Amino acid sequence: MRLDLAYDGTHFAGWATQPRLRTVQGVLEDALATVLRTGPLGLPRPRLTVAGRTDAGVHARGQVAHVDVPRELWEVLPGRSDREPGVALADRLAGVLPPDVVVHRTAEAPAGFDARFSAMHRRYVYRVADRPALRDPLRRDWVLWHRRPLDVEAMHRALQPLVGLHDFAAFCKPREGATTIRELTRLSWERPDEGPDAGLAVATVQADAFCHSMVRALVGMSLAVGEGRRDADAPAQVLAGRSRSAAAGVVAARGLVLEHVAYPEDDELAARAERVRARRDPDEVDAG
Amino acid sequence: MRLDLAYDGTHFAGWATQPRLRTVQGVLEDALATVLRTGPLGLPRPRLTVAGRTDAGVHARGQVAHVDVPRELWEVLPGRSDREPGVALADRLAGVLPPDVVVHRTAEAPAGFDARFSAMHRRYVYRVADRPALRDPLRRDWVLWHRRPLDVEAMHRALQPLVGLHDFAAFCKPREGATTIRELTRLSWERPDEGPDAGLAVATVQADAFCHSMVRALVGMSLAVGEGRRDADAPAQVLAGRSRSAAAGVVAARGLVLEHVAYPEDDELAARAERVRARRDPDEVDAG
Repeated sequence: MRLDLAYDGTHFAGWATQPRLRTVQGVLEDALATVLRTGPLGLPRPRLTVAGRTDAGVHARGQVAHVDVPRELWEVLPGRSDREPGVALADRLAGVLPPDVVVHRTAEAPAGFDARFSAMHRRYVYRVADRPALRDPLRRDWVLWHRRPLDVEAMHRALQPLVGLHDFAAFCKPREGATTIRELTRLSWERPDEGPDAGLAVATVQADAFCHSMVRALVGMSLAVGEGRRDADAPAQVLAGRSRSAAAGVVAARGLVLEHVAYPEDDELAARAERVRARRDPDEVDAG
Repeated sequence: MRLDLAYDGTHFAGWATQPRLRTVQGVLEDALATVLRTGPLGLPRPRLTVAGRTDAGVHARGQVAHVDVPRELWEVLPGRSDREPGVALADRLAGVLPPDVVVHRTAEAPAGFDARFSAMHRRYVYRVADRPALRDPLRRDWVLWHRRPLDVEAMHRALQPLVGLHDFAAFCKPREGATTIRELTRLSWERPDEGPDAGLAVATVQADAFCHSMVRALVGMSLAVGEGRRDADAPAQVLAGRSRSAAAGVVAARGLVLEHVAYPEDDELAARAERVRARRDPDEVDAG
Protein backbone atom coordinates (compact mmCIF):
# COMPACT_ATOMS: atom_id res chain seq x y z
CA MET A 1 0.00 0.00 0.00
CA ARG A 2 1.43 3.38 -1.07
CA LEU A 3 0.48 6.54 0.85
CA ASP A 4 1.01 10.07 -0.47
CA LEU A 5 0.93 12.55 2.37
CA ALA A 6 1.65 16.01 3.69
CA TYR A 7 2.28 17.38 7.16
CA ASP A 8 3.07 20.48 9.13
CA GLY A 9 6.22 19.44 11.00
CA THR A 10 6.01 22.22 13.60
CA HIS A 11 4.61 20.10 16.39
CA PHE A 12 6.36 16.84 15.51
CA ALA A 13 9.68 15.49 16.73
CA GLY A 14 10.34 14.50 13.10
CA TRP A 15 9.17 11.52 11.09
CA ALA A 16 10.68 8.53 12.88
CA THR A 17 8.98 6.93 15.87
CA GLN A 18 10.64 7.81 19.17
CA PRO A 19 9.56 6.80 22.67
CA ARG A 20 7.27 9.36 24.36
CA LEU A 21 7.60 11.87 21.49
CA ARG A 22 4.95 12.92 18.99
CA THR A 23 6.21 11.82 15.57
CA VAL A 24 4.54 11.67 12.15
CA GLN A 25 5.22 7.96 11.87
CA GLY A 26 3.74 7.34 15.32
CA VAL A 27 0.60 9.35 14.61
CA LEU A 28 0.09 7.73 11.19
CA GLU A 29 0.66 4.19 12.43
CA ASP A 30 -1.82 4.85 15.26
CA ALA A 31 -4.35 6.08 12.70
CA LEU A 32 -3.79 3.07 10.45
CA ALA A 33 -4.11 0.73 13.42
CA THR A 34 -7.43 2.37 14.34
CA VAL A 35 -8.84 2.32 10.81
CA LEU A 36 -7.64 -1.20 10.03
CA ARG A 37 -8.53 -2.44 13.53
CA THR A 38 -5.20 -3.96 14.29
CA GLY A 39 -3.91 -3.75 17.83
CA PRO A 40 -2.84 -5.65 20.91
CA LEU A 41 -5.53 -8.27 20.53
CA GLY A 42 -5.65 -8.45 16.76
CA LEU A 43 -3.29 -8.22 13.86
CA PRO A 44 0.18 -6.70 14.16
CA ARG A 45 0.48 -2.91 14.12
CA PRO A 46 1.21 -1.61 10.60
CA ARG A 47 4.80 -0.44 10.07
CA LEU A 48 5.46 2.40 7.65
CA THR A 49 8.54 2.80 5.46
CA VAL A 50 9.07 6.34 4.25
CA ALA A 51 10.94 8.08 1.42
CA GLY A 52 12.32 10.98 3.50
CA ARG A 53 12.85 10.61 7.25
CA THR A 54 12.42 14.29 8.00
CA ASP A 55 13.92 15.88 11.12
CA ALA A 56 11.99 17.66 13.88
CA GLY A 57 10.24 20.72 12.51
CA VAL A 58 10.71 19.85 8.83
CA HIS A 59 7.50 19.84 6.77
CA ALA A 60 6.33 17.72 3.84
CA ARG A 61 3.93 18.25 0.98
CA GLY A 62 5.02 15.35 -1.24
CA GLN A 63 6.03 12.65 1.22
CA VAL A 64 5.58 9.01 0.20
CA ALA A 65 5.39 5.95 2.46
CA HIS A 66 4.43 2.33 2.09
CA VAL A 67 2.98 -0.24 4.44
CA ASP A 68 2.31 -3.93 4.05
CA VAL A 69 -1.37 -4.37 4.75
CA PRO A 70 -2.74 -7.90 4.41
CA ARG A 71 -5.60 -8.07 1.96
CA GLU A 72 -7.89 -9.51 4.69
CA LEU A 73 -7.78 -6.12 6.40
CA TRP A 74 -8.98 -4.39 3.27
CA GLU A 75 -11.72 -6.89 2.80
CA VAL A 76 -13.33 -6.14 6.16
CA LEU A 77 -13.31 -2.37 5.73
CA PRO A 78 -17.06 -1.76 5.66
CA GLY A 79 -18.64 0.46 3.03
CA ARG A 80 -15.82 0.17 0.55
CA SER A 81 -17.70 -1.85 -2.04
CA ASP A 82 -19.11 1.14 -3.93
CA ARG A 83 -15.85 3.10 -4.03
CA GLU A 84 -12.24 2.68 -4.99
CA PRO A 85 -10.66 1.00 -1.92
CA GLY A 86 -7.81 3.49 -1.74
CA VAL A 87 -10.12 6.46 -1.59
CA ALA A 88 -12.17 4.87 1.15
CA LEU A 89 -9.04 4.28 3.25
CA ALA A 90 -7.84 7.86 2.77
CA ASP A 91 -11.32 9.04 3.83
CA ARG A 92 -11.19 6.87 6.93
CA LEU A 93 -7.75 8.17 7.82
CA ALA A 94 -8.97 11.78 7.41
CA GLY A 95 -11.54 11.10 10.12
CA VAL A 96 -8.87 9.87 12.55
CA LEU A 97 -5.75 11.95 11.81
CA PRO A 98 -4.98 15.26 13.55
CA PRO A 99 -5.22 18.40 11.36
CA ASP A 100 -1.46 18.67 10.85
CA VAL A 101 -1.25 15.42 8.84
CA VAL A 102 -3.14 14.86 5.57
CA VAL A 103 -3.10 11.65 3.52
CA HIS A 104 -3.82 12.75 -0.03
CA ARG A 105 -4.01 9.32 -1.54
CA THR A 106 -3.76 5.66 -0.64
CA ALA A 107 -3.40 3.10 -3.41
CA GLU A 108 -2.24 -0.43 -3.91
CA ALA A 109 1.53 -0.18 -4.49
CA PRO A 110 2.86 -1.63 -7.75
CA ALA A 111 4.87 -4.86 -7.46
CA GLY A 112 8.36 -4.28 -6.06
CA PHE A 113 7.56 -0.77 -4.80
CA ASP A 114 9.57 0.37 -1.76
CA ALA A 115 8.92 3.99 -0.70
CA ARG A 116 12.52 4.34 0.42
CA PHE A 117 14.65 2.16 -1.82
CA SER A 118 12.73 2.65 -5.07
CA ALA A 119 13.00 6.46 -4.87
CA MET A 120 15.17 8.05 -7.57
CA HIS A 121 15.43 11.43 -5.91
CA ARG A 122 14.02 13.63 -3.14
CA ARG A 123 13.34 17.34 -3.69
CA TYR A 124 13.32 19.79 -0.80
CA VAL A 125 12.49 23.51 -0.93
CA TYR A 126 13.75 26.06 1.60
CA ARG A 127 12.00 29.48 1.70
CA VAL A 128 13.41 32.67 3.22
CA ALA A 129 11.73 36.07 3.70
CA ASP A 130 14.58 38.59 3.83
CA ARG A 131 12.66 41.88 3.73
CA PRO A 132 10.15 43.06 6.36
CA ALA A 133 7.41 43.49 3.75
CA LEU A 134 7.67 39.76 2.93
CA ARG A 135 6.98 38.66 6.50
CA ASP A 136 3.64 36.91 6.47
CA PRO A 137 2.43 35.74 9.88
CA LEU A 138 0.24 33.14 8.14
CA ARG A 139 3.35 31.45 6.70
CA ARG A 140 5.71 31.97 9.65
CA ASP A 141 5.95 28.24 10.37
CA TRP A 142 7.35 27.37 6.94
CA VAL A 143 9.08 30.51 5.65
CA LEU A 144 12.22 31.53 7.54
CA TRP A 145 12.42 35.20 8.55
CA HIS A 146 15.97 36.49 7.96
CA ARG A 147 16.86 40.02 9.04
CA ARG A 148 19.59 40.66 6.48
CA PRO A 149 18.91 40.96 2.73
CA LEU A 150 20.33 38.09 0.66
CA ASP A 151 22.16 38.20 -2.66
CA VAL A 152 20.34 35.31 -4.30
CA GLU A 153 22.43 35.34 -7.48
CA ALA A 154 25.68 35.13 -5.52
CA MET A 155 24.27 32.24 -3.49
CA HIS A 156 23.22 30.39 -6.61
CA ARG A 157 26.62 30.78 -8.30
CA ALA A 158 28.60 29.86 -5.18
CA LEU A 159 26.73 26.61 -4.64
CA GLN A 160 26.89 25.26 -8.22
CA PRO A 161 30.26 23.51 -7.71
CA LEU A 162 28.48 21.23 -5.21
CA VAL A 163 26.11 19.83 -7.81
CA GLY A 164 27.19 16.33 -8.82
CA LEU A 165 28.49 13.19 -7.12
CA HIS A 166 30.57 14.19 -4.08
CA ASP A 167 31.49 13.25 -0.56
CA PHE A 168 29.28 15.62 1.48
CA ALA A 169 30.95 14.79 4.84
CA ALA A 170 31.35 18.52 5.59
CA PHE A 171 27.57 18.95 5.34
CA CYS A 172 26.51 15.75 7.11
CA LYS A 173 25.89 15.11 10.78
CA PRO A 174 28.05 12.00 11.13
CA ARG A 175 26.53 8.57 11.75
CA GLU A 176 28.68 5.54 12.19
CA GLY A 177 28.86 3.33 9.16
CA ALA A 178 26.82 5.63 6.93
CA THR A 179 28.23 6.86 3.66
CA THR A 180 28.30 10.60 3.02
CA ILE A 181 28.63 10.24 -0.74
CA ARG A 182 25.56 11.60 -2.49
CA GLU A 183 24.57 12.76 -5.93
CA LEU A 184 23.26 16.30 -5.66
CA THR A 185 21.29 16.85 -8.88
CA ARG A 186 20.09 20.40 -8.19
CA LEU A 187 20.84 23.23 -5.78
CA SER A 188 19.28 26.38 -7.18
CA TRP A 189 18.55 29.70 -5.50
CA GLU A 190 16.05 32.04 -7.08
CA ARG A 191 13.69 34.89 -6.24
CA PRO A 192 10.48 34.28 -8.23
CA ASP A 193 8.59 37.31 -9.55
CA GLU A 194 5.25 35.62 -9.27
CA GLY A 195 3.54 32.49 -8.04
CA PRO A 196 3.18 31.27 -4.47
CA ASP A 197 6.74 32.23 -3.50
CA ALA A 198 6.86 35.67 -5.15
CA GLY A 199 9.59 37.84 -3.63
CA LEU A 200 11.05 35.14 -1.37
CA ALA A 201 14.56 33.69 -1.61
CA VAL A 202 13.89 30.06 -2.53
CA ALA A 203 16.30 27.12 -2.59
CA THR A 204 15.40 23.94 -4.47
CA VAL A 205 17.66 21.08 -3.39
CA GLN A 206 17.44 17.69 -5.06
CA ALA A 207 19.57 14.58 -4.59
CA ASP A 208 19.37 10.80 -4.89
CA ALA A 209 19.26 10.83 -1.09
CA PHE A 210 20.39 13.10 1.75
CA CYS A 211 22.46 12.44 4.81
CA HIS A 212 21.42 13.82 8.17
CA SER A 213 20.80 17.61 8.20
CA MET A 214 22.47 17.96 4.77
CA VAL A 215 19.89 20.32 3.22
CA ARG A 216 19.95 22.60 6.25
CA ALA A 217 23.77 22.69 6.25
CA LEU A 218 23.79 23.57 2.53
CA VAL A 219 21.24 26.32 3.15
CA GLY A 220 23.24 27.58 6.15
CA MET A 221 26.32 27.89 3.94
CA SER A 222 24.23 29.63 1.27
CA LEU A 223 22.93 32.25 3.70
CA ALA A 224 26.48 32.96 4.90
CA VAL A 225 27.49 33.66 1.29
CA GLY A 226 24.29 35.57 0.55
CA GLU A 227 24.80 38.07 3.36
CA GLY A 228 28.55 38.36 2.77
CA ARG A 229 29.83 36.50 5.85
CA ARG A 230 31.57 33.92 3.66
CA ASP A 231 33.36 34.19 0.32
CA ALA A 232 31.88 32.91 -2.89
CA ASP A 233 34.38 30.04 -3.00
CA ALA A 234 33.71 28.90 0.57
CA PRO A 235 31.11 26.24 -0.32
CA ALA A 236 33.44 24.46 -2.76
CA GLN A 237 36.40 24.72 -0.35
CA VAL A 238 34.39 23.36 2.57
CA LEU A 239 33.14 20.49 0.42
CA ALA A 240 36.70 19.61 -0.61
CA GLY A 241 37.97 19.85 2.99
CA ARG A 242 35.33 17.34 4.22
CA SER A 243 35.42 18.90 7.68
CA ARG A 244 32.13 19.74 9.29
CA SER A 245 33.70 22.40 11.53
CA ALA A 246 34.45 24.53 8.44
CA ALA A 247 30.78 24.68 7.42
CA ALA A 248 28.47 27.54 8.37
CA GLY A 249 26.12 25.65 10.65
CA VAL A 250 22.65 24.26 10.20
CA VAL A 251 19.75 26.62 9.51
CA ALA A 252 16.38 26.32 11.31
CA ALA A 253 14.19 23.37 10.28
CA ARG A 254 11.16 25.65 9.98
CA GLY A 255 11.81 26.82 6.38
CA LEU A 256 12.24 23.33 4.96
CA VAL A 257 9.58 21.38 3.04
CA LEU A 258 9.95 17.99 1.35
CA GLU A 259 8.07 18.78 -1.86
CA HIS A 260 8.51 15.74 -4.07
CA VAL A 261 9.84 12.19 -4.31
CA ALA A 262 10.35 10.68 -7.76
CA TYR A 263 10.01 6.99 -8.61
CA PRO A 264 10.83 5.05 -11.80
CA GLU A 265 8.24 3.40 -14.01
CA ASP A 266 6.51 0.38 -12.48
CA ASP A 267 8.57 -2.23 -14.37
CA GLU A 268 11.84 -0.82 -12.98
CA LEU A 269 10.79 -0.57 -9.34
CA ALA A 270 11.96 -3.90 -8.01
CA ALA A 271 15.30 -3.80 -9.82
CA ARG A 272 16.03 -0.29 -8.55
CA ALA A 273 15.10 -1.11 -4.94
CA GLU A 274 17.43 -4.13 -5.07
CA ARG A 275 20.36 -2.09 -6.38
CA VAL A 276 19.92 0.70 -3.82
CA ARG A 277 19.35 -1.65 -0.88
CA ALA A 278 22.57 -3.52 -1.69
CA ARG A 279 24.56 -0.26 -1.68
CA ARG A 280 23.17 1.28 1.48
CA ASP A 281 23.49 0.83 5.17
CA PRO A 282 20.06 0.08 6.63
CA ASP A 283 20.38 2.80 9.31
CA GLU A 284 21.27 5.51 6.88
CA VAL A 285 18.83 8.38 6.62
CA ASP A 286 17.34 9.82 3.46
CA ALA A 287 16.30 13.01 5.17
CA GLY A 288 16.89 16.70 4.75
CA MET B 1 1.01 57.58 13.15
CA ARG B 2 -0.18 55.01 10.57
CA LEU B 3 0.60 51.32 11.05
CA ASP B 4 0.36 48.70 8.29
CA LEU B 5 0.14 45.26 9.76
CA ALA B 6 -0.65 41.57 9.34
CA TYR B 7 -1.69 38.88 11.77
CA ASP B 8 -2.64 35.26 12.08
CA GLY B 9 -6.04 35.50 13.78
CA THR B 10 -6.10 31.85 14.92
CA HIS B 11 -5.15 32.52 18.52
CA PHE B 12 -6.87 35.90 18.90
CA ALA B 13 -10.38 36.70 20.11
CA GLY B 14 -10.57 39.17 17.22
CA TRP B 15 -9.24 42.70 16.85
CA ALA B 16 -11.07 44.65 19.53
CA THR B 17 -9.84 44.75 23.12
CA GLN B 18 -11.91 42.60 25.49
CA PRO B 19 -11.33 41.95 29.17
CA ARG B 20 -9.20 38.87 29.87
CA LEU B 21 -9.05 37.85 26.20
CA ARG B 22 -6.07 37.90 23.87
CA THR B 23 -6.89 40.40 21.12
CA VAL B 24 -4.79 41.95 18.37
CA GLN B 25 -5.54 45.45 19.62
CA GLY B 26 -4.56 44.50 23.17
CA VAL B 27 -1.29 42.88 22.09
CA LEU B 28 -0.38 45.80 19.81
CA GLU B 29 -1.21 48.46 22.38
CA ASP B 30 0.88 46.59 24.95
CA ALA B 31 3.78 46.50 22.49
CA LEU B 32 3.43 50.20 21.67
CA ALA B 33 3.27 51.04 25.39
CA THR B 34 6.48 49.06 25.94
CA VAL B 35 8.36 50.56 23.01
CA LEU B 36 7.16 54.11 23.68
CA ARG B 37 7.52 53.70 27.46
CA THR B 38 4.05 54.84 28.34
CA GLY B 39 2.28 53.18 31.21
CA PRO B 40 0.79 53.64 34.66
CA LEU B 41 3.45 56.08 35.81
CA GLY B 42 4.05 57.84 32.51
CA LEU B 43 2.09 58.96 29.50
CA PRO B 44 -1.33 57.55 28.66
CA ARG B 45 -1.49 54.16 26.96
CA PRO B 46 -1.69 54.52 23.15
CA ARG B 47 -5.13 53.79 21.69
CA LEU B 48 -5.38 52.29 18.22
CA THR B 49 -8.12 52.96 15.68
CA VAL B 50 -8.38 50.29 12.99
CA ALA B 51 -9.77 50.00 9.46
CA GLY B 52 -11.34 46.53 9.89
CA ARG B 53 -12.37 45.27 13.32
CA THR B 54 -11.95 41.61 12.47
CA ASP B 55 -13.79 38.87 14.36
CA ALA B 56 -12.22 36.05 16.32
CA GLY B 57 -10.18 33.80 14.02
CA VAL B 58 -10.18 36.19 11.04
CA HIS B 59 -6.71 37.00 9.64
CA ALA B 60 -5.24 40.13 8.10
CA ARG B 61 -2.46 40.81 5.64
CA GLY B 62 -3.32 44.41 4.75
CA GLN B 63 -4.75 45.80 7.99
CA VAL B 64 -4.29 49.51 8.71
CA ALA B 65 -4.50 51.30 12.07
CA HIS B 66 -3.61 54.71 13.42
CA VAL B 67 -2.58 55.96 16.83
CA ASP B 68 -1.97 59.46 18.17
CA VAL B 69 1.57 59.43 19.47
CA PRO B 70 2.87 62.71 20.87
CA ARG B 71 6.04 63.83 19.15
CA GLU B 72 7.90 63.88 22.52
CA LEU B 73 7.65 60.09 22.57
CA TRP B 74 9.30 59.82 19.20
CA GLU B 75 12.02 62.19 20.21
CA VAL B 76 13.16 60.03 23.14
CA LEU B 77 13.32 56.82 21.12
CA PRO B 78 17.06 56.17 21.30
CA GLY B 79 19.03 55.26 18.21
CA ARG B 80 16.55 56.68 15.76
CA SER B 81 18.72 59.56 14.56
CA ASP B 82 20.43 57.62 11.78
CA ARG B 83 17.29 56.01 10.42
CA GLU B 84 13.85 56.95 9.25
CA PRO B 85 11.81 57.15 12.49
CA GLY B 86 9.04 54.91 11.20
CA VAL B 87 11.42 52.09 10.32
CA ALA B 88 13.03 52.28 13.73
CA LEU B 89 9.66 52.02 15.45
CA ALA B 90 8.63 49.03 13.31
CA ASP B 91 11.97 47.40 14.22
CA ARG B 92 11.35 48.02 17.91
CA LEU B 93 7.86 46.59 17.68
CA ALA B 94 9.24 43.48 15.93
CA GLY B 95 11.39 42.85 18.99
CA VAL B 96 8.39 42.99 21.32
CA LEU B 97 5.47 41.53 19.34
CA PRO B 98 4.58 37.82 19.37
CA PRO B 99 5.21 35.92 16.11
CA ASP B 100 1.56 36.01 15.01
CA VAL B 101 1.53 39.81 14.59
CA VAL B 102 3.81 41.66 12.16
CA VAL B 103 3.94 45.44 11.73
CA HIS B 104 5.18 45.94 8.17
CA ARG B 105 5.46 49.70 8.32
CA THR B 106 4.99 52.63 10.67
CA ALA B 107 4.93 56.14 9.24
CA GLU B 108 3.73 59.57 10.17
CA ALA B 109 0.09 59.71 9.02
CA PRO B 110 -0.84 62.48 6.56
CA ALA B 111 -2.98 65.31 7.94
CA GLY B 112 -6.59 64.28 8.46
CA PHE B 113 -5.87 60.54 8.20
CA ASP B 114 -8.22 58.28 10.14
CA ALA B 115 -7.61 54.55 9.61
CA ARG B 116 -11.31 53.86 9.97
CA PHE B 117 -13.19 56.84 8.62
CA SER B 118 -10.83 57.75 5.78
CA ALA B 119 -11.02 54.25 4.27
CA MET B 120 -12.74 54.02 0.89
CA HIS B 121 -13.12 50.26 0.87
CA ARG B 122 -12.04 47.06 2.59
CA ARG B 123 -11.18 43.92 0.61
CA TYR B 124 -11.46 40.46 2.13
CA VAL B 125 -10.50 37.14 0.52
CA TYR B 126 -12.01 33.79 1.50
CA ARG B 127 -10.20 30.62 0.36
CA VAL B 128 -11.68 27.12 0.15
CA ALA B 129 -9.99 23.80 -0.65
CA ASP B 130 -12.76 21.56 -2.01
CA ARG B 131 -10.73 18.59 -3.26
CA PRO B 132 -8.59 16.30 -1.08
CA ALA B 133 -5.49 16.95 -3.23
CA LEU B 134 -5.75 20.68 -2.39
CA ARG B 135 -5.59 20.10 1.36
CA ASP B 136 -2.33 21.60 2.55
CA PRO B 137 -1.63 21.15 6.26
CA LEU B 138 0.70 24.18 6.12
CA ARG B 139 -2.24 26.40 5.15
CA ARG B 140 -4.94 24.75 7.23
CA ASP B 141 -5.41 27.82 9.45
CA TRP B 142 -6.36 30.12 6.58
CA VAL B 143 -7.80 27.89 3.83
CA LEU B 144 -11.13 26.25 4.66
CA TRP B 145 -11.35 22.53 3.95
CA HIS B 146 -14.74 21.73 2.39
CA ARG B 147 -15.67 18.11 1.69
CA ARG B 148 -18.01 18.69 -1.23
CA PRO B 149 -16.83 20.04 -4.61
CA LEU B 150 -18.04 23.55 -5.40
CA ASP B 151 -19.40 24.94 -8.67
CA VAL B 152 -17.45 28.18 -8.64
CA GLU B 153 -19.08 29.60 -11.78
CA ALA B 154 -22.57 29.04 -10.38
CA MET B 155 -21.55 30.74 -7.13
CA HIS B 156 -20.15 33.71 -8.98
CA ARG B 157 -23.27 34.18 -11.10
CA ALA B 158 -25.69 33.75 -8.19
CA LEU B 159 -23.98 36.38 -6.05
CA GLN B 160 -23.72 39.14 -8.69
CA PRO B 161 -27.19 40.60 -7.93
CA LEU B 162 -25.83 41.52 -4.49
CA VAL B 163 -23.17 43.83 -5.88
CA GLY B 164 -24.21 47.47 -5.43
CA LEU B 165 -25.83 49.59 -2.71
CA HIS B 166 -28.27 47.44 -0.73
CA ASP B 167 -29.67 46.80 2.71
CA PHE B 168 -27.69 43.73 3.80
CA ALA B 169 -29.81 43.08 6.91
CA ALA B 170 -30.20 39.40 5.94
CA PHE B 171 -26.43 39.01 6.04
CA CYS B 172 -25.71 41.10 9.16
CA LYS B 173 -25.62 40.06 12.78
CA PRO B 174 -27.91 42.79 14.15
CA ARG B 175 -26.56 45.57 16.36
CA GLU B 176 -28.86 48.17 17.79
CA GLY B 177 -28.68 51.49 16.01
CA ALA B 178 -26.29 50.30 13.31
CA THR B 179 -27.24 50.65 9.67
CA THR B 180 -27.10 47.55 7.48
CA ILE B 181 -26.92 49.52 4.23
CA ARG B 182 -23.62 48.95 2.49
CA GLU B 183 -22.14 49.35 -0.94
CA LEU B 184 -20.76 46.01 -2.07
CA THR B 185 -18.36 46.83 -4.90
CA ARG B 186 -17.16 43.30 -5.64
CA LEU B 187 -18.11 39.73 -4.83
CA SER B 188 -16.29 37.44 -7.20
CA TRP B 189 -15.70 33.70 -7.05
CA GLU B 190 -12.93 32.20 -9.13
CA ARG B 191 -10.62 29.19 -9.30
CA PRO B 192 -7.19 30.50 -10.35
CA ASP B 193 -5.06 28.27 -12.60
CA GLU B 194 -1.82 29.58 -11.17
CA GLY B 195 -0.39 31.81 -8.48
CA PRO B 196 -0.55 31.36 -4.71
CA ASP B 197 -4.20 30.20 -4.76
CA ALA B 198 -3.98 27.82 -7.71
CA GLY B 199 -6.84 25.31 -7.68
CA LEU B 200 -8.67 26.79 -4.69
CA ALA B 201 -12.15 28.31 -4.76
CA VAL B 202 -11.47 31.95 -3.92
CA ALA B 203 -13.96 34.72 -3.05
CA THR B 204 -12.90 38.38 -3.21
CA VAL B 205 -15.37 40.55 -1.33
CA GLN B 206 -15.03 44.32 -1.34
CA ALA B 207 -17.31 47.00 0.13
CA ASP B 208 -17.17 50.51 1.53
CA ALA B 209 -17.58 48.84 4.92
CA PHE B 210 -19.02 45.62 6.31
CA CYS B 211 -21.50 44.96 9.06
CA HIS B 212 -20.87 42.23 11.60
CA SER B 213 -20.15 38.77 10.07
CA MET B 214 -21.33 39.99 6.63
CA VAL B 215 -18.49 38.45 4.59
CA ARG B 216 -18.87 35.11 6.32
CA ALA B 217 -22.66 35.13 5.76
CA LEU B 218 -22.16 35.94 2.06
CA VAL B 219 -19.62 33.11 1.76
CA GLY B 220 -21.97 30.77 3.64
CA MET B 221 -24.71 31.51 1.11
CA SER B 222 -22.23 31.04 -1.74
CA LEU B 223 -21.20 27.58 -0.52
CA ALA B 224 -24.85 26.55 -0.23
CA VAL B 225 -25.34 27.49 -3.90
CA GLY B 226 -22.01 25.99 -4.95
CA GLU B 227 -22.82 22.55 -3.59
CA GLY B 228 -26.44 22.65 -4.75
CA ARG B 229 -28.19 23.04 -1.38
CA ARG B 230 -29.70 26.36 -2.44
CA ASP B 231 -31.01 27.62 -5.78
CA ALA B 232 -29.14 30.11 -7.92
CA ASP B 233 -31.71 32.81 -7.12
CA ALA B 234 -31.55 32.28 -3.34
CA PRO B 235 -28.93 34.99 -2.63
CA ALA B 236 -30.97 37.72 -4.36
CA GLN B 237 -34.21 36.53 -2.72
CA VAL B 238 -32.66 36.43 0.75
CA LEU B 239 -31.22 39.92 0.24
CA ALA B 240 -34.62 41.25 -0.78
CA GLY B 241 -36.35 39.53 2.15
CA ARG B 242 -33.99 41.15 4.68
CA SER B 243 -34.52 38.25 7.07
CA ARG B 244 -31.46 36.72 8.60
CA SER B 245 -33.22 33.40 9.24
CA ALA B 246 -33.46 32.84 5.47
CA ALA B 247 -29.71 33.04 4.99
CA ALA B 248 -27.44 29.98 4.91
CA GLY B 249 -25.49 30.64 8.08
CA VAL B 250 -22.04 31.98 8.76
CA VAL B 251 -19.02 30.07 7.52
CA ALA B 252 -15.93 29.46 9.70
CA ALA B 253 -13.72 32.50 10.36
CA ARG B 254 -10.59 30.49 9.51
CA GLY B 255 -10.71 31.00 5.71
CA LEU B 256 -11.07 34.77 5.88
CA VAL B 257 -8.22 37.27 5.37
CA LEU B 258 -8.49 41.06 5.27
CA GLU B 259 -6.15 41.68 2.33
CA HIS B 260 -6.39 45.38 1.60
CA VAL B 261 -7.79 48.73 2.75
CA ALA B 262 -7.88 51.59 0.23
CA TYR B 263 -7.53 55.29 1.12
CA PRO B 264 -7.96 58.41 -1.01
CA GLU B 265 -5.15 60.77 -1.92
CA ASP B 266 -3.75 62.79 0.98
CA ASP B 267 -5.60 66.01 0.13
CA GLU B 268 -8.97 64.23 0.32
CA LEU B 269 -8.43 62.41 3.61
CA ALA B 270 -9.88 64.89 6.07
CA ALA B 271 -12.94 65.69 3.96
CA ARG B 272 -13.72 61.99 3.49
CA ALA B 273 -13.30 61.14 7.18
CA GLU B 274 -15.70 63.99 8.06
CA ARG B 275 -18.35 62.79 5.62
CA VAL B 276 -18.17 59.16 6.75
CA ARG B 277 -18.08 60.01 10.46
CA ALA B 278 -21.22 62.13 10.12
CA ARG B 279 -23.07 59.24 8.46
CA ARG B 280 -22.08 56.46 10.82
CA ASP B 281 -22.91 55.27 14.25
CA PRO B 282 -19.73 55.21 16.37
CA ASP B 283 -20.32 51.64 17.54
CA GLU B 284 -20.80 50.25 14.09
CA VAL B 285 -18.27 47.71 12.92
CA ASP B 286 -16.35 47.70 9.68
CA ALA B 287 -15.45 44.08 9.97
CA GLY B 288 -15.89 40.93 7.95
